[in-house]
Amino acid sequence: MSDEPLVLAEDHGRVRRLVMNRPERRNPLSQAMIAALREALARAVEDEGVRVIVLAAAGPVYSAGHDFAEMYGHLADADRGLAFFRRLMGDCSALMQAIVTAPKPVIAAVRGVATAAGCQLVASCDLAIAEAGTRFATPGVNNGLFCSTPMVALSRAVPRKQAMEMLLMGEFVGAEQALAMGLVNRVVPAGELEATVMAMATHIATRSSQAIAYGKRLFQQQLDLDLAEAYARASEVMAINMLESDPAEGIAAFLEKRRPEWMDAS
Amino acid sequence: MSDEPLVLAEDHGRVRRLVMNRPERRNPLSQAMIAALREALARAVEDEGVRVIVLAAAGPVYSAGHDFAEMYGHLADADRGLAFFRRLMGDCSALMQAIVTAPKPVIAAVRGVATAAGCQLVASCDLAIAEAGTRFATPGVNNGLFCSTPMVALSRAVPRKQAMEMLLMGEFVGAEQALAMGLVNRVVPAGELEATVMAMATHIATRSSQAIAYGKRLFQQQLDLDLAEAYARASEVMAINMLESDPAEGIAAFLEKRRPEWMDAS
Amino acid sequence: MSDEPLVLAEDHGRVRRLVMNRPERRNPLSQAMIAALREALARAVEDEGVRVIVLAAAGPVYSAGHDFAEMYGHLADADRGLAFFRRLMGDCSALMQAIVTAPKPVIAAVRGVATAAGCQLVASCDLAIAEAGTRFATPGVNNGLFCSTPMVALSRAVPRKQAMEMLLMGEFVGAEQALAMGLVNRVVPAGELEATVMAMATHIATRSSQAIAYGKRLFQQQLDLDLAEAYARASEVMAINMLESDPAEGIAAFLEKRRPEWMDAS
Repeated sequence: MSDEPLVLAEDHGRVRRLVMNRPERRNPLSQAMIAALREALARAVEDEGVRVIVLAAAGPVYSAGHDFAEMYGHLADADRGLAFFRRLMGDCSALMQAIVTAPKPVIAAVRGVATAAGCQLVASCDLAIAEAGTRFATPGVNNGLFCSTPMVALSRAVPRKQAMEMLLMGEFVGAEQALAMGLVNRVVPAGELEATVMAMATHIATRSSQAIAYGKRLFQQQLDLDLAEAYARASEVMAINMLESDPAEGIAAFLEKRRPEWMDAS
Repeated sequence: MSDEPLVLAEDHGRVRRLVMNRPERRNPLSQAMIAALREALARAVEDEGVRVIVLAAAGPVYSAGHDFAEMYGHLADADRGLAFFRRLMGDCSALMQAIVTAPKPVIAAVRGVATAAGCQLVASCDLAIAEAGTRFATPGVNNGLFCSTPMVALSRAVPRKQAMEMLLMGEFVGAEQALAMGLVNRVVPAGELEATVMAMATHIATRSSQAIAYGKRLFQQQLDLDLAEAYARASEVMAINMLESDPAEGIAAFLEKRRPEWMDAS
Repeated sequence: MSDEPLVLAEDHGRVRRLVMNRPERRNPLSQAMIAALREALARAVEDEGVRVIVLAAAGPVYSAGHDFAEMYGHLADADRGLAFFRRLMGDCSALMQAIVTAPKPVIAAVRGVATAAGCQLVASCDLAIAEAGTRFATPGVNNGLFCSTPMVALSRAVPRKQAMEMLLMGEFVGAEQALAMGLVNRVVPAGELEATVMAMATHIATRSSQAIAYGKRLFQQQLDLDLAEAYARASEVMAINMLESDPAEGIAAFLEKRRPEWMDAS
């Protein structure tokens, strides 16, 4: 077992870069890795100095998904692993939802290969930037499974037939195809991944974190409402948001053609 | 203050072309503009001679969204503008929903720039045609806000990650990118916008307005239902629709290889 | 009336190929054709030797949708056809839902023209492969109707504005455009349709049918749930799925770098 931390955390200004750090094992989403990511994410959310979170990975594989060796071991449990699998899937789903519900934007910086729950991580992040050559798959069907939990994120990110093809065929999809279907936002040449992601993260970090927290929370909520309810909720959020200090400053700055100074700038 | 009407209405056969008419102010969705658009839309819906509505704009900017000067003024209200913002957001959301629920198709004819609630107008229309070079943005984040109400329309029109990028980055998206993500239906060369939109509107205007009213109403309703409920509703609508005179005429004309004569043709 | 069966069924290994067989009438979804397809689909689902279902058509037209001559005849019924139209729409919607809820993947192999309910068939299948030159339309508006039931499938497969354009304009969309909007998965050169579809079907047929049945059922269910409920359901499905024999074998085979042997292989 490696003594290295499972997840590295580096701050670049107001951007917290989390790095999955088991490159030699292809960054599997083992129970321990999931716990470490949830912990790192929770800390980044709590830390007032952090505005944007980047989710990156060490080594040539972003993440190969769950840890098959760990799962296989639990098939020998008295309950054939049921309690373990329930906990594992519950914890993993909690991690994915923590990304979606975090009040701070989470950007996936993806290189190499992202499969199964690793592909789900990418689908769950608010934004995803991939290096050219990156490949994505939900290959559970190749192992007697079906990527059922990854499907929840994937089928909300890309059109249905394309999600279904990935799930049924289990084959790799290239970065350009992932871009065309909406799984990633941008594909950048080799060597430009970190710089592009950091530029985007830093750009967002200069905006009002208050307003972004309001907006990101609402994004997912309103998608699960019908149109009238979604507008009722969004209108109220926007009216309340206007009472905060940042919009007043932002609008004043716009009208006065100067740069705004956000409340929580430091 | 200009004495010109806020919204111009021109009839081209059975197509009503509404034109936002504050080009020098970039057609802001002020309270007055929202009221004028709602009024003009209601009149177009009531007018039996109108089959299709086009939503266009005078000048180089389609619409820059809400009127910041107006909003800023209300921050000095006794309640810091809360009542005003609630009314503004409620009225604006009512306008957007009126477009979606109108029994007649609404086509956005977009040129120049459509931002914030202006971009929301485009996302809310049934169809949108953009002139090459048109740019779209939801730039609330640049002003201490978040385009929360525009998000409701945007996140239903385009894939999630692309909606989130527009909302978090606040940057412009070009016409070709808007086309690729589904925000607009077609991009036409400069000088061809009016002709293309009018050709499409006139094409639709020759169809049965009865059938289109049935269908458009159902479009949004059934999307908010699960699959079995959606089919139950659509099947009933289609069976009832068949009892109207237009389908009988349309099917007879098809079988007799002649041009149909719709009930409400004039 | 032709004596030929309405639907042909051919087995290629574990792939059942169903062929709509009224080419001279453009494979209309008459009551009889709908009944034959439902029956053939039910049999394919029940037959344990069948893993994947292909839905193809004889002749130059995949399917032109409902049978106008049949519908027109019922306008002379005492109730002006209401009972007939309700039954027809109900049966047709049941067919479409049977495709979606079948525990086995259904792949549309499309050539020529797929319109109205024929286009809905394509939208309803899990995957769809089209020959270059294939054209799609929902042209009900050209006949005093609106493709309301096709809309249920279409509006879940492609972005909203593109669905609305097809429904309002009633015009043909080419294979490449259908691919770009997500209505089909792949477009193949003339002469390669059968080989491509059979290769994909055979590929899927080598996977665990158990796991695929779990996953496909969940695909549609979870899309109609909110994110937290979707994850709760998917996590439980995945944990239970793990107790089956195929995942144990699949993971063991992966760890041992050998080919897995599924329980129901034969």
